[in-house]
Amino acid sequence: MNLTAFQQTSRDRVNSTLKQNINALPEHAQRLKQAMEYALLIGGKRMRPFLIYATGEMLSVQQKDLDGPAAAIEAIHAYSLIHDDLPAMDDDDLRRGHPTCHIQFDEATAILAGDALQTLAFEILCEYPLSSELALKRIELVKIVSHAAGYKGMCGGQAMDLAATDQHISQQQLEELHGKKTGALLSACVEMAIALATDISPQSKQHLLDFAKTIGLAFQVQDDILDVVGDSAVLGKPQGSDQQQNKSTYPAMLGLKQAQAYLDDLHQQALQALHALPYNTQMLVSFTDLVIHRSY
Amino acid sequence: MNLTAFQQTSRDRVNSTLKQNINALPEHAQRLKQAMEYALLIGGKRMRPFLIYATGEMLSVQQKDLDGPAAAIEAIHAYSLIHDDLPAMDDDDLRRGHPTCHIQFDEATAILAGDALQTLAFEILCEYPLSSELALKRIELVKIVSHAAGYKGMCGGQAMDLAATDQHISQQQLEELHGKKTGALLSACVEMAIALATDISPQSKQHLLDFAKTIGLAFQVQDDILDVVGDSAVLGKPQGSDQQQNKSTYPAMLGLKQAQAYLDDLHQQALQALHALPYNTQMLVSFTDLVIHRSY
Repeated sequence: MNLTAFQQTSRDRVNSTLKQNINALPEHAQRLKQAMEYALLIGGKRMRPFLIYATGEMLSVQQKDLDGPAAAIEAIHAYSLIHDDLPAMDDDDLRRGHPTCHIQFDEATAILAGDALQTLAFEILCEYPLSSELALKRIELVKIVSHAAGYKGMCGGQAMDLAATDQHISQQQLEELHGKKTGALLSACVEMAIALATDISPQSKQHLLDFAKTIGLAFQVQDDILDVVGDSAVLGKPQGSDQQQNKSTYPAMLGLKQAQAYLDDLHQQALQALHALPYNTQMLVSFTDLVIHRSY
Repeated sequence: MNLTAFQQTSRDRVNSTLKQNINALPEHAQRLKQAMEYALLIGGKRMRPFLIYATGEMLSVQQKDLDGPAAAIEAIHAYSLIHDDLPAMDDDDLRRGHPTCHIQFDEATAILAGDALQTLAFEILCEYPLSSELALKRIELVKIVSHAAGYKGMCGGQAMDLAATDQHISQQQLEELHGKKTGALLSACVEMAIALATDISPQSKQHLLDFAKTIGLAFQVQDDILDVVGDSAVLGKPQGSDQQQNKSTYPAMLGLKQAQAYLDDLHQQALQALHALPYNTQMLVSFTDLVIHRSY
């Protein structure tokens, strides 16, 4: 299967799982349900599900066993975007080319929708149909997601990001910040696929984790670059908003040219980590190219 | 052990578990860590941990196996209070006699602290030391908490509460709202103790769940009554804030006298459910009295 077809399949699978989960919710709080659905299903590149399915397929995990992890990670991602966009946080009105959740609904509903989507992620991991021989792995999946999403991961990174606004921080601090804010969830994708795989060597596991870490960093560097050189219409959010908010970014720290050179470095590092694996890494190589060369 | 001693032990145990979990967090986002600690440890009646330990002890579950569930439920409860107090939600400045989290810190930090405390609850359930013969029950605990906290439970109830403000709703709708907003988490306490118990009959389980449901309702009715007749200094929050915000409450719906009569009814129902159990229910009887007669 080529990149585009695989990407489409991943997107279709995760959208279908998310839709099922939302449709299954009773109607007692319709506005909240609508807000959850809006934030989950209005669009999104679905990079994380792609990473889960691609890594899982490479490790001979059945796609259906990856549906829960893919949906859970998107629920966490969607919740984080809703809360990051709130007036008290980044105060963004536009996301994925549409009004942000608190603009489309209201602030209280947006806060609750984020909260409920975080819970939904854990509910999905507890309940999605998983091959019976993997039943004992469920708690491992919950552990991976809770590590990645909480203080030690995404929430902590977001707090570091807030603290770093209007401040000068070192490149090392910026890497730690993004390693948590963006990297932790991308690493969790790879970790979940590994958790469901049978028979993977410690070395391969380490190469995959290195790959995940590098790709997480590359993802953020490209995000920062796009904020400088991107097109608002393609991005689906206002270009230049990092600069406007005086955020710590790679282009601001290194200059645009150096940031792009650093991205190339990371690209090579990611490919090297993949090259060391005894698997067919074609899809992950394509994923890496996609991360580096994406325009939104 | 008498009520007061048991209550103190429960409080000490859960505070100690929570402190350990907060202390174990690294320092990369100090302000967020401080806000999480503030919201978790500044006070609170610890009714839910009491219910967990009392139910568990009655069912011969070891106290140490209940430490994780008690801490997790308090983390969920604390997160919900932080978010409920936000300006976009109930806009409260005072909680447990202290400034609310967004007043003491700031709104962005309060949102993140709530988010990270929700995640922490699931992390605790995945990692707390649990007797090895109960290891398979972990995922059951996660499932119980995720059901109780999300759209089907607490978040959904809070959304219904927001929708019911300034509206006339029926008593049945009010019960459903509170069954989710407050009741679901109290039921989860009992459900987790049941999940960790060996050898409990389906009948006993049902009586305990009926008890939990009734006590959840009684808890809310007394909360509403205290908002009318309570003392702000004792409550640790402004008396009369429900009325001021035009919230749907039992006294507003039934009148104060009828609300108190309803509370007495619920008291009797709860005691009947306990009476039907083949256990020493003394501590749960005391808990019930405490819920009904509390002044804060």
